[in-house]
Amino acid sequence: MNENPNSTARAIEFWFDFGSNYSYLSMMRIEALAAARNVTIVWRPFLLGPVFRQLGFDNSPFVLQKEKGAYVWKDMERQCRKYGIALTRPSTFPRAAVLAMRVALLGANEPWIGAWCRKIMQLNFVDDRDIGSIDVVRAALDSLGLPVQSVIDAAQSDANKLRLREQTELAISKGIFGAPTFFVAGEMFWGNDRLEDAFDYCDAIAARH
Amino acid sequence: MNENPNSTARAIEFWFDFGSNYSYLSMMRIEALAAARNVTIVWRPFLLGPVFRQLGFDNSPFVLQKEKGAYVWKDMERQCRKYGIALTRPSTFPRAAVLAMRVALLGANEPWIGAWCRKIMQLNFVDDRDIGSIDVVRAALDSLGLPVQSVIDAAQSDANKLRLREQTELAISKGIFGAPTFFVAGEMFWGNDRLEDAFDYCDAIAARH
Repeated sequence: MNENPNSTARAIEFWFDFGSNYSYLSMMRIEALAAARNVTIVWRPFLLGPVFRQLGFDNSPFVLQKEKGAYVWKDMERQCRKYGIALTRPSTFPRAAVLAMRVALLGANEPWIGAWCRKIMQLNFVDDRDIGSIDVVRAALDSLGLPVQSVIDAAQSDANKLRLREQTELAISKGIFGAPTFFVAGEMFWGNDRLEDAFDYCDAIAARH
Repeated sequence: MNENPNSTARAIEFWFDFGSNYSYLSMMRIEALAAARNVTIVWRPFLLGPVFRQLGFDNSPFVLQKEKGAYVWKDMERQCRKYGIALTRPSTFPRAAVLAMRVALLGANEPWIGAWCRKIMQLNFVDDRDIGSIDVVRAALDSLGLPVQSVIDAAQSDANKLRLREQTELAISKGIFGAPTFFVAGEMFWGNDRLEDAFDYCDAIAARH
């Protein structure tokens, strides 16, 4: 698909969930960083809920641990200020967004994937909209000029639903325990705080060849 | 104690436990950063074990969550390489070090506090020694030229033991849920990844006055 023979070495897998606040920080930063470093993004939407349940949590650790949860929103405010990213604390957290996630999986190799992901993240973390609602998903698709009904039909197909479950199973089998998580040439980096390190690792690998 | 009238605005509280691997990263970095920025370190040893128990964990989350635990040591290797800090994964983790922590509390305002803390951290995370052992503590005190028996007696006094319990209670009441944690003018920063941000906040506060 990519004509650059070194493309596999210059790729970053981005595992994310639209409900994850630290995934939001990476979502708003990763495309500019990837472009500046000539790295291809491999978009890997997965459902964090089943991963947490597998680990024995029945909700986000930021909800289950109230001290950490209180801190996280202070941290988010400061991080967003530092990066120049807008933030409204969502009135519901974490928000499930299975349909929007299915659309992301469907579009993972499409030219609109970045715009789609940023749009849904902004609806959740800036506009405080219910990204789990089909009406919000419809309006978001429409705003990007995408064919609303055909995208939704394809996203809700049995095959695509199955693929999202399988991608989530794959996340678990790879040892993913949170989001965002990045992989570069098999090396795992967890958290928005490690995004630059993951890109540095792309460069380090390229330098070896 | 400090002749600089702005000293309270130029202070960083460093809450740490000698068993905490990410506290180790901050321990090896904080003194140089504080010196470069003319910031006073307020040394705040506290026991992470009771904090975790208060949160419902009977061990470090890095032990209880094996996926996260496996990742953390990869992350530690990479972070130590990035910072140029030595690392040997301790054969026992996390190590309790109550006596060494009591010595740290006793010495929190003494000129040897930084050297003491670095020494114990290196014994744990580089030399893989049992920092919970009184013999290791004795040898460490001796290596710094400190009066071994009188320091140990003072550290083990009922008053000093009580102070460490109280400092740990204070950590819980301040909403601390992990280590390292930093406070600057009441603002909390969690994790070695936020150490630079905490120092930046010192500067931001100073600029306001």
